Amino acid sequence: MDPAAIEALLKEVSEGKTAVGAAMEKLRNLPFEDMGFAKLDHHRALRTGMPEVIFSSGKTTAQVEAFEAVHAVEPRAEYHDAARAITLTQAATVPGKGMIGVVCAGTSDLPVAEEAAVTARLMGNTVELVADVGVAGIHRLLAQQHTLKSARVLIVCAGMEGALPTVVGGLVNAPVLAVPTSVGYGASFGGLAALLGMLNTCTPNISVVNIDNGFGAACIASLINHL
Amino acid sequence: MDPAAIEALLKEVSEGKTAVGAAMEKLRNLPFEDMGFAKLDHHRALRTGMPEVIFSSGKTTAQVEAFEAVHAVEPRAEYHDAARAITLTQAATVPGKGMIGVVCAGTSDLPVAEEAAVTARLMGNTVELVADVGVAGIHRLLAQQHTLKSARVLIVCAGMEGALPTVVGGLVNAPVLAVPTSVGYGASFGGLAALLGMLNTCTPNISVVNIDNGFGAACIASLINHL
Amino acid sequence: MDPAAIEALLKEVSEGKTAVGAAMEKLRNLPFEDMGFAKLDHHRALRTGMPEVIFSSGKTTAQVEAFEAVHAVEPRAEYHDAARAITLTQAATVPGKGMIGVVCAGTSDLPVAEEAAVTARLMGNTVELVADVGVAGIHRLLAQQHTLKSARVLIVCAGMEGALPTVVGGLVNAPVLAVPTSVGYGASFGGLAALLGMLNTCTPNISVVNIDNGFGAACIASLINHL
Amino acid sequence: MDPAAIEALLKEVSEGKTAVGAAMEKLRNLPFEDMGFAKLDHHRALRTGMPEVIFSSGKTTAQVEAFEAVHAVEPRAEYHDAARAITLTQAATVPGKGMIGVVCAGTSDLPVAEEAAVTARLMGNTVELVADVGVAGIHRLLAQQHTLKSARVLIVCAGMEGALPTVVGGLVNAPVLAVPTSVGYGASFGGLAALLGMLNTCTPNISVVNIDNGFGAACIASLINHL
Amino acid sequence: MDPAAIEALLKEVSEGKTAVGAAMEKLRNLPFEDMGFAKLDHHRALRTGMPEVIFSSGKTTAQVEAFEAVHAVEPRAEYHDAARAITLTQAATVPGKGMIGVVCAGTSDLPVAEEAAVTARLMGNTVELVADVGVAGIHRLLAQQHTLKSARVLIVCAGMEGALPTVVGGLVNAPVLAVPTSVGYGASFGGLAALLGMLNTCTPNISVVNIDNGFGAACIASLINHL
Amino acid sequence: MDPAAIEALLKEVSEGKTAVGAAMEKLRNLPFEDMGFAKLDHHRALRTGMPEVIFSSGKTTAQVEAFEAVHAVEPRAEYHDAARAITLTQAATVPGKGMIGVVCAGTSDLPVAEEAAVTARLMGNTVELVADVGVAGIHRLLAQQHTLKSARVLIVCAGMEGALPTVVGGLVNAPVLAVPTSVGYGASFGGLAALLGMLNTCTPNISVVNIDNGFGAACIASLINHL
Amino acid sequence: MDPAAIEALLKEVSEGKTAVGAAMEKLRNLPFEDMGFAKLDHHRALRTGMPEVIFSSGKTTAQVEAFEAVHAVEPRAEYHDAARAITLTQAATVPGKGMIGVVCAGTSDLPVAEEAAVTARLMGNTVELVADVGVAGIHRLLAQQHTLKSARVLIVCAGMEGALPTVVGGLVNAPVLAVPTSVGYGASFGGLAALLGMLNTCTPNISVVNIDNGFGAACIASLINHL
Amino acid sequence: MDPAAIEALLKEVSEGKTAVGAAMEKLRNLPFEDMGFAKLDHHRALRTGMPEVIFSSGKTTAQVEAFEAVHAVEPRAEYHDAARAITLTQAATVPGKGMIGVVCAGTSDLPVAEEAAVTARLMGNTVELVADVGVAGIHRLLAQQHTLKSARVLIVCAGMEGALPTVVGGLVNAPVLAVPTSVGYGASFGGLAALLGMLNTCTPNISVVNIDNGFGAACIASLINHL
Repeated sequence: MDPAAIEALLKEVSEGKTAVGAAMEKLRNLPFEDMGFAKLDHHRALRTGMPEVIFSSGKTTAQVEAFEAVHAVEPRAEYHDAARAITLTQAATVPGKGMIGVVCAGTSDLPVAEEAAVTARLMGNTVELVADVGVAGIHRLLAQQHTLKSARVLIVCAGMEGALPTVVGGLVNAPVLAVPTSVGYGASFGGLAALLGMLNTCTPNISVVNIDNGFGAACIASLINHL
Repeated sequence: MDPAAIEALLKEVSEGKTAVGAAMEKLRNLPFEDMGFAKLDHHRALRTGMPEVIFSSGKTTAQVEAFEAVHAVEPRAEYHDAARAITLTQAATVPGKGMIGVVCAGTSDLPVAEEAAVTARLMGNTVELVADVGVAGIHRLLAQQHTLKSARVLIVCAGMEGALPTVVGGLVNAPVLAVPTSVGYGASFGGLAALLGMLNTCTPNISVVNIDNGFGAACIASLINHL
Repeated sequence: MDPAAIEALLKEVSEGKTAVGAAMEKLRNLPFEDMGFAKLDHHRALRTGMPEVIFSSGKTTAQVEAFEAVHAVEPRAEYHDAARAITLTQAATVPGKGMIGVVCAGTSDLPVAEEAAVTARLMGNTVELVADVGVAGIHRLLAQQHTLKSARVLIVCAGMEGALPTVVGGLVNAPVLAVPTSVGYGASFGGLAALLGMLNTCTPNISVVNIDNGFGAACIASLINHL
Repeated sequence: MDPAAIEALLKEVSEGKTAVGAAMEKLRNLPFEDMGFAKLDHHRALRTGMPEVIFSSGKTTAQVEAFEAVHAVEPRAEYHDAARAITLTQAATVPGKGMIGVVCAGTSDLPVAEEAAVTARLMGNTVELVADVGVAGIHRLLAQQHTLKSARVLIVCAGMEGALPTVVGGLVNAPVLAVPTSVGYGASFGGLAALLGMLNTCTPNISVVNIDNGFGAACIASLINHL
Repeated sequence: MDPAAIEALLKEVSEGKTAVGAAMEKLRNLPFEDMGFAKLDHHRALRTGMPEVIFSSGKTTAQVEAFEAVHAVEPRAEYHDAARAITLTQAATVPGKGMIGVVCAGTSDLPVAEEAAVTARLMGNTVELVADVGVAGIHRLLAQQHTLKSARVLIVCAGMEGALPTVVGGLVNAPVLAVPTSVGYGASFGGLAALLGMLNTCTPNISVVNIDNGFGAACIASLINHL
Repeated sequence: MDPAAIEALLKEVSEGKTAVGAAMEKLRNLPFEDMGFAKLDHHRALRTGMPEVIFSSGKTTAQVEAFEAVHAVEPRAEYHDAARAITLTQAATVPGKGMIGVVCAGTSDLPVAEEAAVTARLMGNTVELVADVGVAGIHRLLAQQHTLKSARVLIVCAGMEGALPTVVGGLVNAPVLAVPTSVGYGASFGGLAALLGMLNTCTPNISVVNIDNGFGAACIASLINHL
Repeated sequence: MDPAAIEALLKEVSEGKTAVGAAMEKLRNLPFEDMGFAKLDHHRALRTGMPEVIFSSGKTTAQVEAFEAVHAVEPRAEYHDAARAITLTQAATVPGKGMIGVVCAGTSDLPVAEEAAVTARLMGNTVELVADVGVAGIHRLLAQQHTLKSARVLIVCAGMEGALPTVVGGLVNAPVLAVPTSVGYGASFGGLAALLGMLNTCTPNISVVNIDNGFGAACIASLINHL
Repeated sequence: MDPAAIEALLKEVSEGKTAVGAAMEKLRNLPFEDMGFAKLDHHRALRTGMPEVIFSSGKTTAQVEAFEAVHAVEPRAEYHDAARAITLTQAATVPGKGMIGVVCAGTSDLPVAEEAAVTARLMGNTVELVADVGVAGIHRLLAQQHTLKSARVLIVCAGMEGALPTVVGGLVNAPVLAVPTSVGYGASFGGLAALLGMLNTCTPNISVVNIDNGFGAACIASLINHL
């Protein structure tokens, strides 16, 4: 099923000829389109609620050029350098139901927090970014309690000892996605200390993603915020 | 604020004298009750949406006896041995909005999966357990696609190589909570292999909890299912 | 120099025949007494301000019997099972100048906290124990701020993610000795997660001792409290 | 025995003066030729069925120049930069009996997969390369089942969580050589996560080689394919 | 498709009504039989060439009782305690084409080597066991060269430094399956030293399985020996 | 409360209108000043006895420019490149009561030792630096006993095997802050060997900070020296 | 060559019929005696200067019974439980040339030190044991300088931080064999901390053996002492 | 004691006015010379039999300039860049008693082997270098048996799986110093695999030094060769 066919199907839906549920189901089980060295998964957006991400680190220029090819036949495709992704925004994004709070411990954690915020906004979510509220100065965090409690789901990024998600998790009744960052030195071992800290949290509303994976946290937060 | 006061407040709410939101806010910021060597957090259920869990491993009989004391003044308190928790079910639980799917790779992973299922049901959720669908026999998993796609949120438990959450995550558009188990031998290093596998998943809708932490996964799943 | 000689010297001091400083210096550089298979360091108490500790784990009964022998010639010697130590309280202990606060995250951390508290009291310090104030319920900790700020030095014990010392350290202006405990499961790896968390703290008044080493923390806290 | 002697012996074989088996046995137990700082193992090709590989990373130019010297006396010698090897194709290669399937998860794993494919072809095997069939989109892999089941032996390369060999191994009845790649970030720890995942596979037809060792996997696959 | 149906199909084959290839293909893609808490994969033997192994460590007695149930409806089923497996030998096993050599370094490695030998024999292979030929006494190994060179495929088990597979691999032209064992102490870290040694082998005909996994090595060796 | 208000309050104190204790308490619990992306914690110096340190590694130029802005409104602010910190020396520093000894094993450890010495001096302490007294030449260390015993608190920096703090700790009766350095190669694993050595010290007056964290050690030493 | 033949050969030597060198050379290259499941290496004592050690941990009773068999045909064979070895003292042992000093840090390290001392004495060496001279009380060690400097080779056993070999190595001009012990807790990780400390020593006359391997250290020390 | 005094003392010795033993003892216990930031240990050569080595990695140019200063007052001092050392060859070196064999597995290990060989020769030893005899081609190693058996002590360098010292150790009756090298990739983890392999050797005449530490191995080998 080529992109044109997908468009045709969606057009049928918009004209009421095909019910949304039926169209969705149809797309969800179709085979993918073979591009030779990489299989582009056009209907993944429908199946999993987010576009397939092609991990581009270490790829040759040939793969990057793949975007050129994709873009030629599908001009709406976009290449996001920071997120290392080719995305295809099919029609308008569905707005999330609540606000996603993105919190980070120190300003060194900002790049990861921003990756999460940008990604979540791209997926139709309202995002509030609360920066520099590390646990070493707990009153700074407590002053943001109102914002934290307003969020439907939270993304909390922290390096070094990685304690922030635990403290935030104890203040709210929303699910918290913890993102360990590689910020630190010595015995932080590239984010391992923060990762272990978050996995061993004593707060029961926290789950964890890979080190520096702001993108992944945003995908999950967006899924939850669209429920 | 003692339990009687909490009850009084709740009674006011039920009689319309205090609005729900106002009561909730009031409870959320109150101090806790000091029991000497342990601080019981009665209003935590309101603040975070789930009861405080007191990690009991390694505790002396004296702490277990603490439950006796708690039970004397609050007969509704329950002690859950498997979940290592004292819980206080305040009035009826609020039913979750959808179904939580609990999936496990091998029958050796069943205890962790069952801990998750029992916990989630206790919190008011409908749960479907899909067991023994490890990735080494992918057709067994594919035969369960309908159940997997019906879930509002999924908990996937796996030991050894821990690949199941990644495959499940690619089939659904719900958030997936991955629980590495300590099932395995040799280079599984007590669940480390499964944990690392899940953290490095190439599917963007997966977050991870600690090894064998079925309880934590259920808490988060329930939070999400109540949104 | 046998114990009798030490007593004689100290008597000279009490009678003004030898100045305290001179006596101390004399003791500090003397050889030790050879007992065959173990060298008892009688003047260590004077040289480092605390009695030598003989690590007894794995020792044969013969070494435990050593205490019997020591006790026969020095009836004031005491054997402390919990602290795994033979101590010799020489005359009265010098009282510490302020209060040592001993804080622990969960009740599972109590044994380590109590080891620290008992040891510190044995060395002449006033101790206040603040238990069960883990960071997942930050208001419980904040309610103890007055006690925390009253301490001249703090010992903070925590397992699992080990975040408590960082939060406590941000609230006070006293030195904080962090003690990771082996409380936890799965990815806590026997206290490694808590240890790494404490070493990577973003609060600059925290130093760390070995996992479960409440004894060592108390020794250092007592030294500081006697300055 | 110098190269000329080897040629003479092989000539005798081609003229029927020496039986193949006798010649093989003769070569198999002969000493090697000493070149001063490196011992070239001319008859290794006969003894183990593949040419000796000289690991060249970190070697000084002098060793690379060694090839110049080798090439001067044995013009059929070839230097393969990618494979870091000096090879000596003695007469024509023996064709493998079936097809070797080389599978990789993402396009980032392609370099390792290509190293394996090139090496296997050099050793006389027919190779089919199946790229970009990671387990996060299982239908892409299932669409290649026919190719996978046609292979006599499979090489499966994957980074990140390294789950692909397990899923492929469950679909086929051929031996699978798993190659973890260093593709990934954060908790992939340079391929360690993929390596552990593959070693802990729950499919019993999988063995593993070193991280990024496409060359080694191809050597073993070729050995098996020539049985 | 129940076992009876499988038998009926196989009977058709034996009577020439269905071609072997067609029957095999039919079985290979059929769904499995659902037993409630565990999915028995009757046709796995046909699909992957070996019966499914149910990892039984940590299973409750209920699962072991599962064998009782299986045995009641399929009396040919066997429970193998050492191999932790329920197997179903469908008709006679196909004999392997050559000999499988099983080699071990010290007598402490014998249990793992024997697990491999027993398993390989069960699958129809001729096995020769060469024990106690560790590399510290290389002449013992060289004295077994004839046996080693006669094998079509080799399984080499070693603990401690795990060097044996590398030395054996340099002597033969057959594929070598290396099995690290947990034999050792101190810095062997439960077999990790042997595992790393085998993965870093400088001999290109060696692949590795999990620590103590003699069963897995035998499965792969049998697959290769039946090619 | 802006810096001007802090100054006003302090002026009241100096004029006797407000008691020191009351002013301190007032400042200690005040909220911080919000600067948008980073919260400057003006009264932290009062609350914890040392200025907040903003970890600047990995920060964008924008954050460095933050100092420009801070400096514009508070000209006494200083930027310390080596210490990666913005400090605000409020009035004169309070002199420490004794001498801080900074000891290092080899000349390669000097940068970390100097970081500690500079920081401690900045905080009002007298510092003596004893360099190049590694334990491999114990007489060099013993020759410095007088200096070591004169210190009120000691900072001991060592890489490689990290044994120096243990030996120094046995010679003195002051608290010792051990700083592992990343000096070493091979099995030092970036300072891990020294870190583990220090944590496992058999001298009970030693606590440890992160690898290369001379700054943190100086902060704690200064706190102790001001008691 | 059976034991009788070895005796005959040695008799020839003692009668001057065969030169010692010739006899040694003859023995050194002879094949070993095959006992079925274990190859006893009778002439190893001659080839490497020490009897073969059969690592017995985990062996079945059958292997222990092997000693019974060996003892039946060679009554001089001895079974050493502590050293886990079958030894054959051929004629009288050759006395070592100097004294071997065995040093240990704490009394908990005594078992390993004693294993080393017993083994070294068995091999014909004079041994002096210096116990309980850990680096935390350096004067105890310095008081033993004369003994340390009298040794031709030293074995130094230490657990916890493992610093003793470095300090001893700096005091003497003899080779030092460092033996890390598993004595310790928490971050000693079963002797890993001591092992890393010893490998990173800054004293250049120290080499290291496996954790708790007093036996191996004694073998090497004896070899050196017989040069 | 300044260098001139050392020379004067040595002159007395050469003129028979002071016995060698007396002079040695005198020098052995003297204090060192203080140069401000580094203490040069002139008599270390006498005390430990080898010159002090100043680890220069990471040192500022100022320390390198230290050599200039040393050279100005002691023109016989030499700076060795590869060995990172300032040495002072006092009179002629004492020749070692036998030959030191330096063996390496692959040509990639040559730099470390050459560092060992150069160092050993500098200390007065005869050295024979046997290169490229890795265990994957065991006949190459066996062909060098005569040289190996002629050595009084052996240094064996190997990366990757690090098996060479074990095999060499089984062939000789001399002590073997094993040097793991960082040669390898993937799961060699910078030499860790080779290091663990050597520590777990089943040959009892092997001790180990740090990764790539050819210098240290040569120091110990020279000490042994001078006994």
